[in-house]
Amino acid sequence: MFPIEIVGFTAGAFATIAFVPQVYKTWKTKSAKDVSIHMFLLFITGVILWIVYGAVKGVPAVLVSNIIIFILAALQIFLKIKYDKKNKK
Amino acid sequence: MFPIEIVGFTAGAFATIAFVPQVYKTWKTKSAKDVSIHMFLLFITGVILWIVYGAVKGVPAVLVSNIIIFILAALQIFLKIKYDKKNKK
Repeated sequence: MFPIEIVGFTAGAFATIAFVPQVYKTWKTKSAKDVSIHMFLLFITGVILWIVYGAVKGVPAVLVSNIIIFILAALQIFLKIKYDKKNKK
Repeated sequence: MFPIEIVGFTAGAFATIAFVPQVYKTWKTKSAKDVSIHMFLLFITGVILWIVYGAVKGVPAVLVSNIIIFILAALQIFLKIKYDKKNKK
């Protein structure tokens, strides 16, 4: 692997794990009032397209990291809807 | 451009504009308590690496979209720190 490919791979790894602290924070505080659902809906749309891109072009790194991001972003959307509903009561 | 390249380009566009509603929401509500700063710090680290990758590999789409994401994510981090401080008082 060329050094620059390692840079690209590391960039992807950072973007992927970035979602973990947000999901954890929402789960821990049981509140996601300030989190924009539109951000996550737009982001997950991009992620789905990247999964298609990674699958068609045969780029495992793109495919795998975006599948992980998809799961985390979907979890965040689920928690956001759940706690927004609960906190409104 | 091959159709699959259009998919990749559209994916990048969605990920880029995704940050706009989050920054707008934070600016509008003047609160970002539920937003994880760790998410944005990890994400912006990835974005900086992608800017390096895009510059070295000469991929304008990667370079431009990540510069835009960098500006939006930096703005989000700035607003988060600002309003967290203000709302603590």
